[in-house]
Amino acid sequence: MNPYMEELVLDPSGKGLFEFTHDLVEVVERSGITTGLATVFLCHTSASLVIQENADPSARRDLESVLDRLVPENDPIYTHTAEGSDDMPAHIKAALTHTSEQIPISGGRLVLGTWQGIYLWEHRRFPGKRRLVIHIGGCR
Amino acid sequence: MNPYMEELVLDPSGKGLFEFTHDLVEVVERSGITTGLATVFLCHTSASLVIQENADPSARRDLESVLDRLVPENDPIYTHTAEGSDDMPAHIKAALTHTSEQIPISGGRLVLGTWQGIYLWEHRRFPGKRRLVIHIGGCR
Amino acid sequence: MNPYMEELVLDPSGKGLFEFTHDLVEVVERSGITTGLATVFLCHTSASLVIQENADPSARRDLESVLDRLVPENDPIYTHTAEGSDDMPAHIKAALTHTSEQIPISGGRLVLGTWQGIYLWEHRRFPGKRRLVIHIGGCR
Repeated sequence: MNPYMEELVLDPSGKGLFEFTHDLVEVVERSGITTGLATVFLCHTSASLVIQENADPSARRDLESVLDRLVPENDPIYTHTAEGSDDMPAHIKAALTHTSEQIPISGGRLVLGTWQGIYLWEHRRFPGKRRLVIHIGGCR
Repeated sequence: MNPYMEELVLDPSGKGLFEFTHDLVEVVERSGITTGLATVFLCHTSASLVIQENADPSARRDLESVLDRLVPENDPIYTHTAEGSDDMPAHIKAALTHTSEQIPISGGRLVLGTWQGIYLWEHRRFPGKRRLVIHIGGCR
Repeated sequence: MNPYMEELVLDPSGKGLFEFTHDLVEVVERSGITTGLATVFLCHTSASLVIQENADPSARRDLESVLDRLVPENDPIYTHTAEGSDDMPAHIKAALTHTSEQIPISGGRLVLGTWQGIYLWEHRRFPGKRRLVIHIGGCR
């Protein structure tokens, strides 16, 4: 069976973790695929993807503050500074997290653990829209 | 051909890197798939996956001690502290490593390099059982 | 349709980010697959893969210098030192970045964003040849 592909456009309001698990669930439903693998690919280098706890918002806030401290703005080591003080940190944060994520599908559902959600991790203060390509392979 | 899926349950004794390459090799054999791609997905957010050197145990010990120092317990920056001092570091370590790994299959075998093994990287001191879903797509 | 597989050998001159987007584009063309998913797997544990900005070389230089500072050589915490001062840092850098990357294919082309390129991130000063296995699943 041919793979199913769909583009998803997210519109993050600024830096932080934005959950889109529900959007992905809808894409899986539209695909009609019941056993397979969903791959999410982010078409950008200053944001990233992460699968993380979706129960307590404090965990996401801490992820954000720890990464901000680990990769600060205005670090004198940066030479790539023309696109703003949050640009080079954004590239580094993206390299340390993920451009794509995979989640298997069984019985028509993503096999996410009880506390898992999938997030766009936006690393720029004033991002534009973010484009994701979802590829779902498998069978009906 | 339909994808093959199987669940693997690991029972790590505490923090550290636990190799399960041999378990994955057995899943690949049971799948009967000779050319394809194995995807391993971990259904948890306080442990992670990594493909690393399986020759010298000192490399794994150093990975563990470096990550422990980079993401310490009891950091005053944390607000998500209700689940124990090793919980928030576990989420951060998981975000900085991987929730899924992929390994191609050729001639019925994983195409791992000579020194590569696949590991569950457990980040909690008293973890329960850890559930992994293996998805194998390809052909016989 | 059976997956397409091909091995790619890169010969990095030393540490740093080496783009191989064009090589991957050629593999996709040879595969004949027009809708699907390309997975790149690196068969080594002291180098890694990353999808990053391919416009301005200063971004790559900064990625390299930030990672070098985050994971320095000759750190007294290391016990795995027999293979040279750049070996243990190389394993850690690989664990913090990626052993595999996925890029969907649509209309016979990788759906990379405008500024995205795929890189071998070499972490050793005198590496040998680096072997990558490309797996492409999908349909014509």
